[in-house]
Amino acid sequence: MSEIEPARPPSPPYYAVIFTSVRTDGDNGYEQRAEEMLRLAAGQPGFLGVDSTRGAEGLGITVSYWRDEESIKAWRDQADHARARADGRAHWYSSYALHVARVERSYDFTRADARSSDIPGRGI
Amino acid sequence: MSEIEPARPPSPPYYAVIFTSVRTDGDNGYEQRAEEMLRLAAGQPGFLGVDSTRGAEGLGITVSYWRDEESIKAWRDQADHARARADGRAHWYSSYALHVARVERSYDFTRADARSSDIPGRGI
Repeated sequence: MSEIEPARPPSPPYYAVIFTSVRTDGDNGYEQRAEEMLRLAAGQPGFLGVDSTRGAEGLGITVSYWRDEESIKAWRDQADHARARADGRAHWYSSYALHVARVERSYDFTRADARSSDIPGRGI
Repeated sequence: MSEIEPARPPSPPYYAVIFTSVRTDGDNGYEQRAEEMLRLAAGQPGFLGVDSTRGAEGLGITVSYWRDEESIKAWRDQADHARARADGRAHWYSSYALHVARVERSYDFTRADARSSDIPGRGI
């Protein structure tokens, strides 16, 4: 089975920052900076996890999960992250949308035959 | 430039259903049903758009946007969709997580050189 797993933040309420994007052509330093930003975010107070992927058709979706609005604002104001966002607008993204949302309920599922100890859903 | 664009729902508040998943091996009828479900969802009252992609590493993220909780519940209870969810647990998914969230603010960006008429962001 795959080692990739969806992020499982603790029980709601928590916050989700949904970032959907289409890249410009070429790397332009993107891959390295994107990895740095994921590493930096993971060390921020209130960070609860992240799901991130980009399909062959070009659409990227990154959802990061946070304890509260304060932790989202602190990450927004983090200096390296603010510089990376400016570089994103200058070089990396053709278009993007960002949605800040309060998660009110969540569910999860793991196949019983996919692992020896199944993790029960939270609320199904 | 790419023809793919992030969904742009109208101004908040609206709701987002974040579905992150890892597939089982093989198609097992998934692709056709997934397309049918996207088409059905798009015809539901209160549907505001969808962003969906799956990366080569196997993680899929689908975010659908809805006007309110009522439209999410009506879609959840739609009979074809309920059957597809059961098939998902039986056949298609190794694991998934679902987060239902109220979007409180949103922003978007389109490169000025990417199109002749730039769409101003909503709130940056």
